[in-house]
This record gives sequence, C-alpha cells and structure tokens, in this order.
Amino acid sequence: MSDAVNVLVIGAGAVGALFGSALATQGARVSVVCRSDYDVVSREGYAIRSELFGDHRFRPHRVYRDVSECTESPDYVLLAVKVLPNIDRIALLRPVVGANTAIVLIENGIDIEAEIAAAFPHNELLSSLAFVGVGRAGPGEINHQTLGSLTMGAYPSGITDAARKLAALFEAGKVPCKLTDNVVSARWQKAVWNAPFNPISIAGGGLDTASMLRTAEDRAFIRQAMTEVCAVAAADGHPQSPKLVDSMIATTQKMPAYKTSMALDFENGRPMEIEAILGNVVRAARRFQVATPALDAIYALAKMVEGARQTR
Amino acid sequence: MSDAVNVLVIGAGAVGALFGSALATQGARVSVVCRSDYDVVSREGYAIRSELFGDHRFRPHRVYRDVSECTESPDYVLLAVKVLPNIDRIALLRPVVGANTAIVLIENGIDIEAEIAAAFPHNELLSSLAFVGVGRAGPGEINHQTLGSLTMGAYPSGITDAARKLAALFEAGKVPCKLTDNVVSARWQKAVWNAPFNPISIAGGGLDTASMLRTAEDRAFIRQAMTEVCAVAAADGHPQSPKLVDSMIATTQKMPAYKTSMALDFENGRPMEIEAILGNVVRAARRFQVATPALDAIYALAKMVEGARQTR
Repeated sequence: MSDAVNVLVIGAGAVGALFGSALATQGARVSVVCRSDYDVVSREGYAIRSELFGDHRFRPHRVYRDVSECTESPDYVLLAVKVLPNIDRIALLRPVVGANTAIVLIENGIDIEAEIAAAFPHNELLSSLAFVGVGRAGPGEINHQTLGSLTMGAYPSGITDAARKLAALFEAGKVPCKLTDNVVSARWQKAVWNAPFNPISIAGGGLDTASMLRTAEDRAFIRQAMTEVCAVAAADGHPQSPKLVDSMIATTQKMPAYKTSMALDFENGRPMEIEAILGNVVRAARRFQVATPALDAIYALAKMVEGARQTR
Repeated sequence: MSDAVNVLVIGAGAVGALFGSALATQGARVSVVCRSDYDVVSREGYAIRSELFGDHRFRPHRVYRDVSECTESPDYVLLAVKVLPNIDRIALLRPVVGANTAIVLIENGIDIEAEIAAAFPHNELLSSLAFVGVGRAGPGEINHQTLGSLTMGAYPSGITDAARKLAALFEAGKVPCKLTDNVVSARWQKAVWNAPFNPISIAGGGLDTASMLRTAEDRAFIRQAMTEVCAVAAADGHPQSPKLVDSMIATTQKMPAYKTSMALDFENGRPMEIEAILGNVVRAARRFQVATPALDAIYALAKMVEGARQTR
C-alpha cells in the first residue's frame, strides 16, 4: 500500500469519476471531492454503466464534501471542474497541492492553464483533454456512452516522468492516454471543433450536429468559423493541418446526430463554458489582431442566450 | 353604393383584417380572402379588440376561401400575406387584378416589389409598411395591441392619386398613413431594425428585445449589424441618417421588452420571413460588394434554426 499512487479528483462529476475509476482499478488510491452527490457517493460510491469498461461500482478511498476537509496532499490532483468565471480553481487547488503534487487539468477550453501555472509555479502542471461521451444519469450514477481517451502533456510543453507514469496507469486502466510534447497545440486542435460547434448548438434553443451541417450554406458557415479558429491558433504559434477543418466536418457528418456538451448544459439549465471554449479564442484573436467575424457573432449570440436564461 | 371604393384583402389575417376594417368604417366595400378562418369569418366576420379603434365586429362585404372565387376586380387589392419562398404572390394576385386595380403591398422586407411590378407592369403598385402590434387571438379574433400606422408610396418612387385617395381613407378610419415619394428608402429604414432584431431573436431561441440589448457587448453587436444594413442601404442608393441606429436602439431600450414578430412565429411554429427580412439584405450586400459579416452570421444561424425546426 505504501507505494500506491495517491490521487485526488476535484469535481468528481461524470468525467472525473470515470477517469478516477480507471486509475483505481490499477491500484491507485483515488479519493474524490464531490459536492452535489456527496451523500450517495460517500455511502455507496459511483455506479458506472459502461460498455467499454464494463458496468461496475467505483468506491473512492475517501469522499470529501469540500477541499478544506482533505488532510493530505496527493501525488496527483485531477481537476475536472468546469472552467467558469465564478469557479475559483486556484482556491480549490490551494488546500490540497503539496510540494510534490502534480496538478492535472482535465478540462475544456483555450488559455485555461496560465493562471494555474502562475499560482503554483513550483508544481508540475499536466494539461489534458478528454475525448469521452459520459454523463450523470442520477445521484452517483454515471453513464459512459462512448470513447474515453485522454491527450496529455506538461504545460506549456514537454513530456515529464510524472506524465509518463500517470499515462501508463491510465493505459493499464483501459483509457488510451496519448502523451504530447505540445499540449497547447492539441488544445487548439480540439478548439477548432469545440469553439464553433458548442456555442452554435445553443442557438435556436438547442441544435444537434446534423442540424448544424444540413445544407451547403450551414457547412460553409461552420467551415468559416472553424477556419477562423485555425487562424488564431496559427497566430498563437500553433498552426493546424490545412486538412483539419474538412476532415472534422466529414467525421461529424458521418457520426449519428448528437448534442454537444454545451447544448446539454443549456437544455438542463447548467452553467456553460462559453468563455473557456469561445470567449478565450475571441480574446486571443483580438490580442493577435486576427479577424474572426463569424466567431464574434457566435460569441455575441451565445452570451445573449446565456444572459436571457440567467434573468429569467 | 356605386361610387364606393372596392377593396379586396388577400391574406386577411390580423394585419389585413385590421386595416381592411379601418377602410370599411369609411364606407369602402371591403371583401377578404381568408383561408384558415374562413368558416367563422364568413359566418360572423372578425371580432376585433382594440383600444385605439374600439372593440368592434368587422363584417366583410364578401368572404372568399380562395382568390379563384373572386368574380370582380377591386379598385385596390391589399396583399397582406407573408413574403415566403413557397407563397406565389403573383398567382394570388393574377385572378383579381383588373386593368384599373391598384396593387397595395402591406408586407415586410426588402426587394419584395420588383417581381410584382414585373408581373403587372400596367398596374399601379403601392408599397406600404405597417407599424402595428396586432395578433390573432383565435379563429376570427383579432387582438390589436399597439400602434397602427402605415407608410405608403408608389413603387419604385413617387406619390400618385391612387395613393392619396387610399391614404385619405385610412386617415379617416383612424389609421395614420404617411405618404412618401421614396418608399424603398422607408423600407430600408425599417430594415435597419428588422433585419438584425428579428433573426437574432430566433437565433437566440426566442429572445425579447431586452435580452438583445442587456449588456454593452449585446448593444455593440446589434449596433454592428444595424450599421451593416445601413451600408447596404447606402450602396442601394438609400443612405439613412447617421443617427438612425443609435436612436432606434435607444427607443427599443425605452420600450417594455417585447417579442419580435419572427420570435412569435418561431414559438408558434409558423413560417418565418427570414428571406424577405434578412436574406434579401444579404443578397443585396453581395450584389453591391458590401461586407456584412455580422448579418451573414445571423442569417446562417437563423437558417439553421429554421431548418432544424422543419426536420423535427
């Protein structure tokens, strides 16, 4: 037991619980901070339904209601909360990050690492992207639908021993974990899809992917928005493949129609990561003086929709 | 009776019935083509609730289910149907337009007259804009909420005797009817508001005016879109006052929050005049090589929303 890896998952909703569970199957001692479903999870753990991993129950080592209750610093802290203006991620990390704790972000968006790196300059910071379809079906109930892989790298660049060790544990736990020495570039790549599709999907009260790609005009507009993200990425020093946009559109068209995570958040009245996913792209565009007229309009509309919901 | 003005209203929904009724109070012989509420209207006429005009019943001279049933040509035919790609307005007019019939459009949008003028080159064509808040409350029931004025002129320009005569009849019937010798310019002026606000309200899933002007960012986006309409109008030879945009925004902010007609159409599953109100503006912009990035995005999103609704 003494050489078991200690992991703490902060924000152990669907994504955090699923990946935490994968590590636990490999002997890691995985504790969770879980606010909303605390009662059920502390009593029974998580019930995870998953074709890929098999239906199983994940009983965390410890279940905390709040980070302030954590008494020891883990080897890895997995931060899986949403990136939202009113969530202070540094305050969540502060009580649990020790001298040897590696901070692992499993979060969406662009430019979401710098403030964490600045607040914890002596800690290892691993930035990672999840490619997974997973949702909360009920209190402590996780429904894993599709995929389930990670792309991970040290921030701002490189691959470290801590990254290799964690990736090996994930891989052993059946989670493909691709290491990259340029995680910011990987983040931009994901943003090429996310930044247009997610906010557009909340237009009209919730559009699925098929409704966003139905006509040639739809596809031209989506292509323009994605191409604008590529231009910002290139200006930030992370040029993407010229084939990326068309290949992403083709892949999306081949998949069955589905709702983006933001569309689901919208429909369920949950906070939306508009700033992390699109706002930060638009702000980067202004910084680099890249014109992004389609993204600007999508952003303006998404903010109107968000504002209208909040004042209802 | 022999010198009574004969009027036929085609598309006698809320707008058509309200203005037709105003003419009838002044002795005009007003018949209507009314498809959806034919049974009730042919039996009982329209029940009109209106503070401005007083609650009253409007019994048309004749009620037709279809234009093919009309046996004589009126002095004025008021076309008050929506301008939609699948509504053949020329086919609606053809059976009733005689040598001396003046065609009166009471319709929204830009570039909606030319095809009518081409189809009836020897008839007078009066183009008019309604400023009115009126809706259908039930079969044959019209609820007149606010305003109730017209701006009218001969197309493409000028003021004719037929226009003066009809305007006088409207004015006598308590409908302020402003004559203009440049109705296309008036149409552009209305488009400065309509072209952004209407489609944005549905792209946002049914936003009211307050939700579209809540933050400084909202207003900047609306201002950009309105300014783009002004640029297209100027390129079409109809420059608008430089103060128009800010004054329209200020007026809209002062009014109680309300839903645009397109938002109401959206919420009630009715066809939306996206092409007449915005599509034609965007197409004019391409023709004149005016950049309209905000309008292009709004148009693309509105079309996605419309398409998603149709395939549901």
